Amino acid sequence: MKAVVLEKRNEINVREVPGDLVCGPGQLRIAPHTVGICGSDVHYYTHGRIGRYIVEAPMILGHEASGTVLEVGEGVTDFAVGDRVAMEPGVPDMSSRASRMGMYNVDPAVSFWATPPVDGCLVEEVIHPAAFTYHLPDNVSYGEGALLEPLAVGMHAATKAAIHPGDVAVVSGCGTVGMLTAAAALAGGASTAIVSDVSSVKLEIASQIPGVVTVDLREQRLLDVVNERTAGWGADVVFEASGHPSAYEDLWKLGAPGNRTVLVGIPVDPVAVDVTEVQARETRIETVFRYANVYQRAIDLVAAGKINLKPFITETFPMDRAKEVFDRVAEGRPGDVKLQITVG
Amino acid sequence: MKAVVLEKRNEINVREVPGDLVCGPGQLRIAPHTVGICGSDVHYYTHGRIGRYIVEAPMILGHEASGTVLEVGEGVTDFAVGDRVAMEPGVPDMSSRASRMGMYNVDPAVSFWATPPVDGCLVEEVIHPAAFTYHLPDNVSYGEGALLEPLAVGMHAATKAAIHPGDVAVVSGCGTVGMLTAAAALAGGASTAIVSDVSSVKLEIASQIPGVVTVDLREQRLLDVVNERTAGWGADVVFEASGHPSAYEDLWKLGAPGNRTVLVGIPVDPVAVDVTEVQARETRIETVFRYANVYQRAIDLVAAGKINLKPFITETFPMDRAKEVFDRVAEGRPGDVKLQITVG
Amino acid sequence: MKAVVLEKRNEINVREVPGDLVCGPGQLRIAPHTVGICGSDVHYYTHGRIGRYIVEAPMILGHEASGTVLEVGEGVTDFAVGDRVAMEPGVPDMSSRASRMGMYNVDPAVSFWATPPVDGCLVEEVIHPAAFTYHLPDNVSYGEGALLEPLAVGMHAATKAAIHPGDVAVVSGCGTVGMLTAAAALAGGASTAIVSDVSSVKLEIASQIPGVVTVDLREQRLLDVVNERTAGWGADVVFEASGHPSAYEDLWKLGAPGNRTVLVGIPVDPVAVDVTEVQARETRIETVFRYANVYQRAIDLVAAGKINLKPFITETFPMDRAKEVFDRVAEGRPGDVKLQITVG
Amino acid sequence: MKAVVLEKRNEINVREVPGDLVCGPGQLRIAPHTVGICGSDVHYYTHGRIGRYIVEAPMILGHEASGTVLEVGEGVTDFAVGDRVAMEPGVPDMSSRASRMGMYNVDPAVSFWATPPVDGCLVEEVIHPAAFTYHLPDNVSYGEGALLEPLAVGMHAATKAAIHPGDVAVVSGCGTVGMLTAAAALAGGASTAIVSDVSSVKLEIASQIPGVVTVDLREQRLLDVVNERTAGWGADVVFEASGHPSAYEDLWKLGAPGNRTVLVGIPVDPVAVDVTEVQARETRIETVFRYANVYQRAIDLVAAGKINLKPFITETFPMDRAKEVFDRVAEGRPGDVKLQITVG
Repeated sequence: MKAVVLEKRNEINVREVPGDLVCGPGQLRIAPHTVGICGSDVHYYTHGRIGRYIVEAPMILGHEASGTVLEVGEGVTDFAVGDRVAMEPGVPDMSSRASRMGMYNVDPAVSFWATPPVDGCLVEEVIHPAAFTYHLPDNVSYGEGALLEPLAVGMHAATKAAIHPGDVAVVSGCGTVGMLTAAAALAGGASTAIVSDVSSVKLEIASQIPGVVTVDLREQRLLDVVNERTAGWGADVVFEASGHPSAYEDLWKLGAPGNRTVLVGIPVDPVAVDVTEVQARETRIETVFRYANVYQRAIDLVAAGKINLKPFITETFPMDRAKEVFDRVAEGRPGDVKLQITVG
Repeated sequence: MKAVVLEKRNEINVREVPGDLVCGPGQLRIAPHTVGICGSDVHYYTHGRIGRYIVEAPMILGHEASGTVLEVGEGVTDFAVGDRVAMEPGVPDMSSRASRMGMYNVDPAVSFWATPPVDGCLVEEVIHPAAFTYHLPDNVSYGEGALLEPLAVGMHAATKAAIHPGDVAVVSGCGTVGMLTAAAALAGGASTAIVSDVSSVKLEIASQIPGVVTVDLREQRLLDVVNERTAGWGADVVFEASGHPSAYEDLWKLGAPGNRTVLVGIPVDPVAVDVTEVQARETRIETVFRYANVYQRAIDLVAAGKINLKPFITETFPMDRAKEVFDRVAEGRPGDVKLQITVG
Repeated sequence: MKAVVLEKRNEINVREVPGDLVCGPGQLRIAPHTVGICGSDVHYYTHGRIGRYIVEAPMILGHEASGTVLEVGEGVTDFAVGDRVAMEPGVPDMSSRASRMGMYNVDPAVSFWATPPVDGCLVEEVIHPAAFTYHLPDNVSYGEGALLEPLAVGMHAATKAAIHPGDVAVVSGCGTVGMLTAAAALAGGASTAIVSDVSSVKLEIASQIPGVVTVDLREQRLLDVVNERTAGWGADVVFEASGHPSAYEDLWKLGAPGNRTVLVGIPVDPVAVDVTEVQARETRIETVFRYANVYQRAIDLVAAGKINLKPFITETFPMDRAKEVFDRVAEGRPGDVKLQITVG
Repeated sequence: MKAVVLEKRNEINVREVPGDLVCGPGQLRIAPHTVGICGSDVHYYTHGRIGRYIVEAPMILGHEASGTVLEVGEGVTDFAVGDRVAMEPGVPDMSSRASRMGMYNVDPAVSFWATPPVDGCLVEEVIHPAAFTYHLPDNVSYGEGALLEPLAVGMHAATKAAIHPGDVAVVSGCGTVGMLTAAAALAGGASTAIVSDVSSVKLEIASQIPGVVTVDLREQRLLDVVNERTAGWGADVVFEASGHPSAYEDLWKLGAPGNRTVLVGIPVDPVAVDVTEVQARETRIETVFRYANVYQRAIDLVAAGKINLKPFITETFPMDRAKEVFDRVAEGRPGDVKLQITVG
């Protein structure tokens, strides 16, 4: 079967890999249909590693996927051949202590697509546990299904924020995750999401989400806008989605007393935190690592029309143009929210 | 000044009452503009009492109000004469133990408009604490401002439900509070609200809220619809908003494992609860008594267009037709969601 | 190997059952050492069923057990032959939706010892997943290890109560579960546990727990004691552990504004609930079904001396006297908190 | 009346100040009996300021106090002349938005004893709101009553930690607040508190709290001890109570997946935080600013014997030796947990 393989740093081939996959009990054999390309996929391509995860052998790329069920394993009762599905890419050891507590995402034994040495899903067939596979309703396309994975990050952040209905939200950073976090926060109960970035192109795209107020950091200070719109009270929930150290300068001043600030972005280096500012408002800081238990709720919001994913699918390519897609994502064009590949 | 006075059971007059109100420190003098009529107002009219609250002297009616600031008391800095406002009708003793804990609504010493012997707001002028008065944005009308009070009940219920983004909600009962609870739950993060009632007229009105699925109990069993739409898992949050004992028959079967069921409706008599059904799902039952700390968030959702109150304002009358309005509310026409009176 | 077998209703034999158990991956082969007898074991003995669980074939009894590891399955790294352990008796499908959310106890597919048709642990050897097996520290005896199971019920209730340090607790009902709930609530942060019952013998035993205040319901009204000790404010957390309908009469008046009332006892029939009383305090009602994620914390409290289980182990018998033990538990002597059997 | 007055930086006098205090509605006139000396009192003495709070005029010192009621203001029903009481030193504007939400401690308008320009309580008489005054049970001494204030900091931290019964706690830093936090965490449900410091004298004192495990940082690495005692899982709750930047090096590695880390200590400068370590465990970081709604619960724990404050009262002095006491606290002897002054 055909796959997009990262042979080693800087070398991607679309080529044959061994097939004949065996569908065991509790599993599904699935034909991936659409796969989105994530910054992490590209980072393995351009750097050959992310932290302690190192590409030491050829690895199939891709972890944001929707597809069609080809075979149903023993004991699986809620899926049938032909079902349209989305797949949650991390498969934990469900017997681990973290999993038993409902935090399967932080189980150190989790096996995650396209995280070395685990192969990804840019391939014609995969085996996946039914427990981490979700039905796509008729009104959710394969492209939207593949976008559920980055949306899940925003959904998890919005869940952790414990949004009260009508809360004012701030989202610092308007990359793909920032936009999807804003969409999740608004669908998840916020009345307004004040979204900041230095890219007017990105802010323009984000402004298509009903409820978003944009702040171009080259023209305005985010803190000023927040204070003006909340009569000095501050935001009830704050999402740091840029990972940029400069975002931390005003971060702790954006929130109201008792606010929840969720750290979604991943700063490369340690950031300086003025603890007294955090304490002065008794800010609760929540942190997220991927997501858990959010896929079904994400699907329900998309199907209900409360989250519109269409503006975020920038362009879709056939599989044999995979290298071109990876190069373009590496380029980082501001208007590219999500590029996707159709498999086959 | 002119007021709508309940002289005693069954006797309402629109007549002069003493004016010359004094605006003390921290207070505002306000001219009520629009006042909604609530079932409790009418109950005092038709029964002369609600539980231990008995009409023993003439009392001005009305507690759902918006208005205009006429005078600003000493020490109040965030209001000016002419400001358009909504007023939270319950004023607690903020030094009480419950108030110190943030639950000022359950403070037994709370003074609430039109709850004997406290006068209400169907009158040309009132004195009200600035701390319980809220600015109306330009795009929120006086009529919508007056509707914030019943919406606050739904907002408080939706807050207590701890809705996770995308949760499936059920609202049992589609009276005014049921509809507003559905609106609050959907704005507050639910993907869908399955709303049930025996009145097709009411369900028709509720179906104008995006995300509402209606269940006519004369034709379908609510439990069947919930199971079908959730693949047998159940609803994540359930609101009992009818107060009707029959609603309790299936109530505990509607929720998923770990669901939160919020009791909003007020049953007249004790209801029979099968505790084993509640335990089997480890349902958390939340209860609400009026509301606390929700007005600003309700206003923000209305101003942002996430809650559209217009379909719920059935008709508005001038003050001198007050008796007619009370008689019509007492009549209980299914299509009457909220009747309002303009003061003056 | 020898086992205590419920042949059918009213007939218990200590007899040989097939052995040669196979210890698979992730599993342990364990020799049960001490097994406590629970009311549910006895109910199967005397009634042949509990609700929809019916004894239709001979079944080994017992689910409260400690023991010694005999064999370690493939992939298990944290246990060794000879380890002293306690076993959590319910084994869920860890891939179920409830399990993924951390609520493995409410997974309908859970397999629980001595719940028909699943055999229990009053037998010389069992196979058990390592994930549901816990190390016993040197200072925790086998008898205490077997008592962890009913303690887990109290621990789970105390966890759900969200006790704030220093909260005043009420425990209505002083059976085994009531006592262990009081012990868990006090170790879990309550300053005082006001425990009520009609049995002075039981109250006398409970009074050995530091922090317990006893209320003999034949002499005092629980509500009066609570009001007196809290200056009329009410209890911060309330545990209903009797399951008796009469306990529900004053139940909702015992709690303070914002209290959490946990329903631990299992009433046979529906109980009448005055919803207005619950709403007046905005009581949160929590419910429990067995327990999840509490064994390690229970062990830590016992090992640290914060829970003393010794007063609750009334008497221990050899396995061949099993029938006598079951008959005595069926008798319901007030001074019998827990009878245990040593296996072998 | 006589008072301990900080005339200006470095100058303390015990001298007469104007009396004739007026006890208004809702207030009490109280004779302080015992007053503890806090690091902040001493900091005003030695530096003349703390941040933006500057001593610009003579100010009475002291904010940790117990005393006796001398006069009862209008409308106060729950206190009588002669009552033994403890006083919560911060009096907020209870109408502020933060106060209405139950977070009166973060209300910017709070008036706090001995925070310029507000006088403190080292004086023969004070006026204090009854709402922030608490009865001392007979078995709680005036000295213990005065120690409730620093204990309240630990209580608030322990409350925010959302301790589950039996959780393993870490307390980094064994100053007065660290010790009291450990005591509160253990009384509040922790099975063990692993307390670290560089002072063996302080650790020796802390080891008198049942459940404390001490770690001398000159001999052991805290992370190693935590990993050893939790089989590598980590602590469920972590309290940073040193405020020292070096404590932040390993801080985020101490906690288990899903742990709550409470920042109690106040670092002078920004600290470097490796966000990826926090995210890897989905640590929730809670912060505290003084305390709210904890005094009654603290009193209940002391009265119940679950917190023993006696080991922390190092020595008590008469008022005319006040300067000597302040000089000694400034000296920072490791064995001095709390020095107190009796007024009069």
